[in-house]
Amino acid sequence: MSIAVLNGSGRPGGNTELLTNVVLDGLPHTELVLREKRILPIVDQRHTEGGFQPVDDDYDSVVEAVLSHETLIFVSPVYWYGVSGLLKNFIDRWSQSLRDPRYNFKEVMSKKQAFVLVAGGDNPRIKALPLIQQLRYTFDFVGMPLSGYIIGQASKPGEILEDSRAITEAKWLNSLLKQQA
Amino acid sequence: MSIAVLNGSGRPGGNTELLTNVVLDGLPHTELVLREKRILPIVDQRHTEGGFQPVDDDYDSVVEAVLSHETLIFVSPVYWYGVSGLLKNFIDRWSQSLRDPRYNFKEVMSKKQAFVLVAGGDNPRIKALPLIQQLRYTFDFVGMPLSGYIIGQASKPGEILEDSRAITEAKWLNSLLKQQA
Amino acid sequence: MSIAVLNGSGRPGGNTELLTNVVLDGLPHTELVLREKRILPIVDQRHTEGGFQPVDDDYDSVVEAVLSHETLIFVSPVYWYGVSGLLKNFIDRWSQSLRDPRYNFKEVMSKKQAFVLVAGGDNPRIKALPLIQQLRYTFDFVGMPLSGYIIGQASKPGEILEDSRAITEAKWLNSLLKQQA
Amino acid sequence: MSIAVLNGSGRPGGNTELLTNVVLDGLPHTELVLREKRILPIVDQRHTEGGFQPVDDDYDSVVEAVLSHETLIFVSPVYWYGVSGLLKNFIDRWSQSLRDPRYNFKEVMSKKQAFVLVAGGDNPRIKALPLIQQLRYTFDFVGMPLSGYIIGQASKPGEILEDSRAITEAKWLNSLLKQQA
Repeated sequence: MSIAVLNGSGRPGGNTELLTNVVLDGLPHTELVLREKRILPIVDQRHTEGGFQPVDDDYDSVVEAVLSHETLIFVSPVYWYGVSGLLKNFIDRWSQSLRDPRYNFKEVMSKKQAFVLVAGGDNPRIKALPLIQQLRYTFDFVGMPLSGYIIGQASKPGEILEDSRAITEAKWLNSLLKQQA
Repeated sequence: MSIAVLNGSGRPGGNTELLTNVVLDGLPHTELVLREKRILPIVDQRHTEGGFQPVDDDYDSVVEAVLSHETLIFVSPVYWYGVSGLLKNFIDRWSQSLRDPRYNFKEVMSKKQAFVLVAGGDNPRIKALPLIQQLRYTFDFVGMPLSGYIIGQASKPGEILEDSRAITEAKWLNSLLKQQA
Repeated sequence: MSIAVLNGSGRPGGNTELLTNVVLDGLPHTELVLREKRILPIVDQRHTEGGFQPVDDDYDSVVEAVLSHETLIFVSPVYWYGVSGLLKNFIDRWSQSLRDPRYNFKEVMSKKQAFVLVAGGDNPRIKALPLIQQLRYTFDFVGMPLSGYIIGQASKPGEILEDSRAITEAKWLNSLLKQQA
Repeated sequence: MSIAVLNGSGRPGGNTELLTNVVLDGLPHTELVLREKRILPIVDQRHTEGGFQPVDDDYDSVVEAVLSHETLIFVSPVYWYGVSGLLKNFIDRWSQSLRDPRYNFKEVMSKKQAFVLVAGGDNPRIKALPLIQQLRYTFDFVGMPLSGYIIGQASKPGEILEDSRAITEAKWLNSLLKQQA
C-alpha cells in the first residue's frame, strides 16, 4: 500500500505537519507539498469550444503522483473553516483532469482510499465539520472512500502535541496504516 | 448603501454571474472579478518573527475596495462543494489583513452586511450547505452578519435562468436591496 | 398528485402552520396532525428474537395515510435545532415499518416526493441546516427525493407573515404544486 | 465532579450502552434511562396566556437529576441521522424549564460540561455530523460547553467493540474523566 501526502499547509513545520508525522511514523510515503508548487486556479473551460487548454504549471506532475499511490492523505490547516486555498485550487483542477484523455481519473481515484488530517484554532471539532462534509462529497464524486479523518486543535506552533485526543487518534491511525502496509 | 461584488467565478458569463445580474438589476455596484486579479495563496507568517511580509500582488487593492463598501456580495460557483479556490485564496489572506496596521479590518468588516450567491450542478441546495456554514463561520469571526444567501442549480451555460426558485429569490433580494438603497 | 401534510407542530395555529397554509392555498390535501395522535417512541427490537411486536397506538393509521399519498410535506417548528420530538418519534418508527410485511415501505416511499417546511426563531436559515441535512439523509435512505425545503424565521405568533423571503418561497412552491396537480 | 448519563437508547444493552460502559469504567455516575420514563412531547405554550401548564409525567424528576450533576453525558443511538425521539422529546421540554420559576435553568446548565456518545450503522462519522452540530447549537443556547463527542460505527448487537477507533476514543475519554474526578 503506497501512501501519498497532499500537504496544503501554508508554512513548514506547522501543527498539521506535526500531526501528520505521528500518523506516518515509520511508514514510507511520498510527500507532495503544495506551497512549493505552482498550481494556478482553474480556468473553467468545461463549456468552451475546444475544452480545457494545457496549463503551464506543476499541476500535472502533482496529480500524476496522486494517481500513482493507493492511499491519499489530505493534510490542511483549517483556514477560515475550510481547507487552504492552496489545496482548494488543486482540487478545483480535478474538473480538468476528469476530462483529460491521458488519465482515467475517476476510475483510478475510485480504487484509492482517502484520509483527512486537519488542525485549527477555533473549536475545529465543531467548526471544521463542514470542511469534512465538503471533502466527503468531493471524494464521493470520484468514488473514493473517506476512510477516516482527524481534527486537531492547535494555534501556536507545536500546540497540537498537547491535544491528547488528536495524538491518540493519530497513533491509532498509524497502527491501522501499519496493519494495511 | 454602497455595494461591492466579490466575483470568484472561473469563467465570464457563467451561471453565478447571470444570477448576480438579476440580484443587482438597476443597482449601482462595484464588481471585483478575482480571476482578473493576481492573488497569491497566503504564506502563513502568523508565528514568524517579523510577522507577515508585504506581498506583491493585487490583494491590497481588492481588500481596500471591499473595506470601502457597505454591502458585500460574495459570488462563487460551487466548485467541489466549496467556493472557488480563487475566492478561498482571497479569504485566506484576511489572516494577514487582521494583523495589518493599515486596516482596522475586523472592526470595519463588522459594520457591513454580507450576501452569498452560489450556483452548482450537483444538488447544491443540499450539497452546498457546508459551503454556507463555512462562510457563516467566516463572517461571524469578523462580526459581519450573513443577511441572506441564494443557492442556484445549474450546470450548462444559462441554465440558471430555468431555476425558477433561484430566480424568484434573486428578484426578492433585488427588491430588498433597492429598499435599502 | 395527492398531497399529505405531516404536521409536527406542538401548538395549533403556529408559524409553521401559517407557512403551510400559503404553500397549500387552493390545493386539496390530507392533514395528519401528530400532536392529536398517540405515537409511542420506538422500542428497538431489530435484533430481538421475534422482531418488532405490534404497538397499540396511532402509528399504523398515520403511516398508512402517508403511504397512500404521492407528495409528502413534512412540517415542523424548529425545536432545539431539530424537528419536534413528535415528528422524530414518528420517523423513528419507520425502522419498524421497514420490516413490516404488510407494507413494501421502502419501495412505496421511493416513488414519492418530499418537501420540508420549518420555521424557528434563532437564525434558522443557518441553524436549521443540520435539520435539513438530517431529513435529506432520511429520505435518501428510503429513496425519496427531497424536492424542496423552506426555512422561515419567526418566534411570536403570526410573525412568519412578515418574513417576506419565506412567504415569497411559499408562494413559489404553491405555484409549483399547482402545476404538478 | 458528579456525572449523569442521559440514556436515549431504545433497547437495553445496545451498542451505545456498551460504548458508554467503556467511557465510565470505574467512574461513579447516575444513569437516567429515558425509555424507562414517561416523558410526553412538549405542548408549546410559550405564547399561551398563563404559559406552560404542569405536566403529569417523569420529566421533572429527570430534569432535576440533570440539574444536580456537573458533567452530563448524552447517549443516543443514531436513529434516522438524529438522536432518538425519546431524547429529543426530553430536550424539547427544556423550553418549558427555561420558563419554570423553580429552576434557574439556563444559568445552572451553563456551569456544566457536556459530552455526547452516539453509535449508528450507516456511516455515522459522516452522517451523524448534523446530529453533533444540532446538539452543539442546543448546548450553546444554554451556555454549556460541548467538551467532546464520540461517534461509533455499529449495527448488530456488540459490534461497537470491534470499532477500534471508537473504543480508543472511549478509553481516552475515560482517562480524561478520571483526571477530572
